[in-house]
Amino acid sequence: MTRQPYAPLPFTEVAMTGPFWRERLETVLTRTIPSQHAKLKEAGILDSLKLPKPVPPLSIPRNKHNFTTQIFWDSDVGKWIEAASYALSHRRDADIEAKIDAIVDDLARAQSPDGYLNCWYNGREPERRWTNLRDNHELYNAGHLLEGAIAYFRATGRRRFLDLMERYLDHIAATFGRGHGQKRGYPGHQEIELALVKLYRLTGDRRRLDLAAYFIDERGRQPHYFTQEAVARGDDPAAFWAGTYEYNQSHMPVREQTKMVGHAVRAMYMASAMADLALELDDAGLKRACEALWRDVTTAQMYVTAGLGPKESNEGFTEPYDLPNETAYAETCASVALVFWAQRMLHLDLDGAYADTIERALYNGALSGLSREGTHYFYANPLESRGQHPRWAWHVCPCCTMNVSRLVASVGGYFLSRSDDGVAIHLYGGFSASPTIQGKRVTIEETSDYPWSGDIRIAVDPETPTTFELKLRVPGWAKSAIATINGRPIALAPARGYATIAREWRAGDVVALDLPMPAERLYAHPDVRTDVGRVALRRGPLIYCVEEADNPGGPVQRLTLPREAPITVERASGFAGATTLKAPAKALASADGDALYSTRPPAARDATLTALPYFLWANRQPGSMEVWIAESVA
Amino acid sequence: MTRQPYAPLPFTEVAMTGPFWRERLETVLTRTIPSQHAKLKEAGILDSLKLPKPVPPLSIPRNKHNFTTQIFWDSDVGKWIEAASYALSHRRDADIEAKIDAIVDDLARAQSPDGYLNCWYNGREPERRWTNLRDNHELYNAGHLLEGAIAYFRATGRRRFLDLMERYLDHIAATFGRGHGQKRGYPGHQEIELALVKLYRLTGDRRRLDLAAYFIDERGRQPHYFTQEAVARGDDPAAFWAGTYEYNQSHMPVREQTKMVGHAVRAMYMASAMADLALELDDAGLKRACEALWRDVTTAQMYVTAGLGPKESNEGFTEPYDLPNETAYAETCASVALVFWAQRMLHLDLDGAYADTIERALYNGALSGLSREGTHYFYANPLESRGQHPRWAWHVCPCCTMNVSRLVASVGGYFLSRSDDGVAIHLYGGFSASPTIQGKRVTIEETSDYPWSGDIRIAVDPETPTTFELKLRVPGWAKSAIATINGRPIALAPARGYATIAREWRAGDVVALDLPMPAERLYAHPDVRTDVGRVALRRGPLIYCVEEADNPGGPVQRLTLPREAPITVERASGFAGATTLKAPAKALASADGDALYSTRPPAARDATLTALPYFLWANRQPGSMEVWIAESVA
Repeated sequence: MTRQPYAPLPFTEVAMTGPFWRERLETVLTRTIPSQHAKLKEAGILDSLKLPKPVPPLSIPRNKHNFTTQIFWDSDVGKWIEAASYALSHRRDADIEAKIDAIVDDLARAQSPDGYLNCWYNGREPERRWTNLRDNHELYNAGHLLEGAIAYFRATGRRRFLDLMERYLDHIAATFGRGHGQKRGYPGHQEIELALVKLYRLTGDRRRLDLAAYFIDERGRQPHYFTQEAVARGDDPAAFWAGTYEYNQSHMPVREQTKMVGHAVRAMYMASAMADLALELDDAGLKRACEALWRDVTTAQMYVTAGLGPKESNEGFTEPYDLPNETAYAETCASVALVFWAQRMLHLDLDGAYADTIERALYNGALSGLSREGTHYFYANPLESRGQHPRWAWHVCPCCTMNVSRLVASVGGYFLSRSDDGVAIHLYGGFSASPTIQGKRVTIEETSDYPWSGDIRIAVDPETPTTFELKLRVPGWAKSAIATINGRPIALAPARGYATIAREWRAGDVVALDLPMPAERLYAHPDVRTDVGRVALRRGPLIYCVEEADNPGGPVQRLTLPREAPITVERASGFAGATTLKAPAKALASADGDALYSTRPPAARDATLTALPYFLWANRQPGSMEVWIAESVA
Repeated sequence: MTRQPYAPLPFTEVAMTGPFWRERLETVLTRTIPSQHAKLKEAGILDSLKLPKPVPPLSIPRNKHNFTTQIFWDSDVGKWIEAASYALSHRRDADIEAKIDAIVDDLARAQSPDGYLNCWYNGREPERRWTNLRDNHELYNAGHLLEGAIAYFRATGRRRFLDLMERYLDHIAATFGRGHGQKRGYPGHQEIELALVKLYRLTGDRRRLDLAAYFIDERGRQPHYFTQEAVARGDDPAAFWAGTYEYNQSHMPVREQTKMVGHAVRAMYMASAMADLALELDDAGLKRACEALWRDVTTAQMYVTAGLGPKESNEGFTEPYDLPNETAYAETCASVALVFWAQRMLHLDLDGAYADTIERALYNGALSGLSREGTHYFYANPLESRGQHPRWAWHVCPCCTMNVSRLVASVGGYFLSRSDDGVAIHLYGGFSASPTIQGKRVTIEETSDYPWSGDIRIAVDPETPTTFELKLRVPGWAKSAIATINGRPIALAPARGYATIAREWRAGDVVALDLPMPAERLYAHPDVRTDVGRVALRRGPLIYCVEEADNPGGPVQRLTLPREAPITVERASGFAGATTLKAPAKALASADGDALYSTRPPAARDATLTALPYFLWANRQPGSMEVWIAESVA
């Protein structure tokens, strides 16, 4: 396996300058992240860290399996610290830092002398630590705390939290592994693997990478650890509440897996870690496994919004082409994690198909999880509604809230990559960055009104004239991209999604890239039975939906769209400055009064259909919505 | 309110002579009912009656609310006795009678000295009787036992079971009511009301009718009995697991209810009892309430198969036009109970619309609950499947199994009604009956291959020439019915669904009724969002479906039907001798390889679509199925 020479430029080195992301970023920095701290306090999550006697929350909700989300409250804290630290990387904030330091104080007090750190176990049942990796999220919590510690260190240089986590990791590494006296366990909910690779990249400590590799490779081996662990607890392993180890992707060794199964977020975190390890260890076998899983997800199990996991009961995957719209689970976290995975795949293999998926997940399934004003959320992201899906201000399991805030707060990290002799731009939307190429600092300023417009200007400004490759992603949806350099047309010949411009770049060079964004119809593979006879609308990277707020007069499901109807793009005319789509459509009306069934087809009256970007839905009054619109019958 | 002069002819006076019902009836009598006894034994249900020490079953399944179905096992026994007794009315059987007598022995031993009879409470927690009417089904069980006792008495003349139930009813009547010291309770699950009316009709004991009327009228009054009862138990009434009293239709007094809500079977039993009482008490208020609920159900909440209740969690209703197909609950019991209700409405008001619904429910949503060979069942009756819906041999809650067997075993009771000066025929399919009209015995023989053919011959043979009205139902679907008498055409002028022929009838008179049965397309009201752009097929009383067994080569959801495609009727050529429908259709295929989403619409290849009556689905290999077929897009 040839290592891909491109590595992402960290978001800390990418200033977001375009209107779209500036607005989302400001919202997240000024409203979302502060309000999440208040919610963590309100929900009792912060107080749960105050050992030795944590303040008991008013109530601990338990699900039908007698499972409480409190078992993973540590992870919510870790994820908030991560998101807040990303915010600090944009601008320091003494108040936020004091809040984080106070949490770290609590964590330091909660840590056991041997390094173990889990506030639930230490506060409630310390003797039962490490007895139920399958269900109880200790390693998952450790992973999110570690990500928080890394992010806080990177943002502030303060290493107390990180040191504390290093001690915990020493304990974990001593506890788990293939050595004598060690448990051959691994996480029930994957996450720590990703965090360990991040730590390795920060410190170079190879033990952390090895531990990640151990967790990934041990997963699903026989004899099955979760079975042995259940027996050791005195539980019947066959009584596993989820019914199957597919739920946590431990049904077989990960390298043998070719179908994505089970809980979608666990699956995405696992796949992301597999891709990380494939890269760091130059492991062609892991890369092949990732590619097989990628093919399965993207050709048979992904909503058009890049939502993943249709089913609520396992929060996850079911079977190929099973993509119901109204009952779609499509957890925000899963689309966020798909962004993580797709970015890692892209850096194993610079193929625009991966970047297309980053973009699809980012602008649709992930961003839909956060309200316009930044303090309301979706956990599930259905593609159809009759109005029964209001956004909520918090959730008993608040994982998605901080997943979306950490993604937006670090979004610049997905925009471009550098190698020793080139720059690859993956996403557009306005940024400024100055990577070092061939030893020279090259300032790149991308200016655009993306995703509303595909009219993109890229100013390249090396400190001295420098020859390098500029790779520009030409999105899969952009059928007739054209470009100029300093006003002179150039031939764009994109290969695998990237047009490469190799030349000596000089100060003042400007590439103008035009990605025409007509409104387009999308059709699902006909095995997606829910979408037969239906069409979705896309413009650029955005999937659209029809929402009752723009289409008053009844459920939007009564609107049908003739296949040949022209679709008009209305620039920045819609809600929240969004570009909307309009088309002459038909509104069905009963041809037979209030008869529920009739031999007469419904009357089809002329109407106008207005579509809004999906990520903006449910920000106004409740009402019906659909992404897949019935096509008109002749 | 003018009493409707027509009363149903009991099934014991109607011989089923046509091929369709003879076959179903034979299957139920010879296979279904005997096998159900074996299953009741196997499941521990029969042993649970053996007090004082009932044999504990191997396991008592409990749902997430810690509720066990064992609490209503008495009802399953009652319902089996009812079905078996109907079988005995067709032909006596010493073995079956011995089995019933053995059960009655157990019940007699289980009965408390004060008449109380509930095997769960008497066997396990006698001190808690009558403390939780909301959840624990004591009155429901009593109702089904009473129906069994009435049926057994009618079939055999043996009154031991009936006497025992009369003692129990005396106890119930003493316990519940508005008198001093009585509990103002009523059933959490309605049923006993129906049974009490049946008993009143058998014995003329007015107290039984009064008790039924009390239960119906007390329901939903304030202060709310279930709330008071919960407080008395020490439970928090607000913690009611179902969340709302709509679940059991006690959210308001029944006469004020205009929307059908909650658990569908409870709702149907309640409505049936309301109609019974409206008739027996000449109660125009109750009739109006029934009519409002009827309108709501049939114009907004009924599947095209006459399935009721889309949602699993409440086994019931949701909101107008919410009729998802693949996840339809549509419990068999609910369609069976809709037959009960519709028949009662018909006898409040001889309107063919009610008979149309009897027929729709009988031939579709109810009959689909029983397999072809008579020993496998559906509890839920989805209108679409990807093949994940096999029939099962039994169910943890076996209510539906015996509901369908008792319906089929007594199906003749829905075919015709008599009044002092007329006969009304509601259903066709081959029967012979000799009601007394004007004091004369009139033999009526209806001969047909219905529902496969609408070619119907009715021989009228009075013992002496007699003038009376023969009312023939002209189904709502029969657009161009014609008839002759003794070969001479007559003008049929159906009013409210019935054509009335008043004449002096003589031996040898023959009416030939021709109900043409072209295949028809049905469209749902456009507010049924799931069915927009879709069409269902009907022929005569049968709703059709497309099943993979007849349409191999992929999921049937890939087939689309052009709106103008001619539909051919193939007589008795299909599975199980069924008339099938065929149409030139389109089979969609990906136009873009394995791409999940594409800007190119799927290719539409010529194909043939074969449709089978819905009630016959899932009798061959598992596969996909749908009732609502996507119409082809131009």
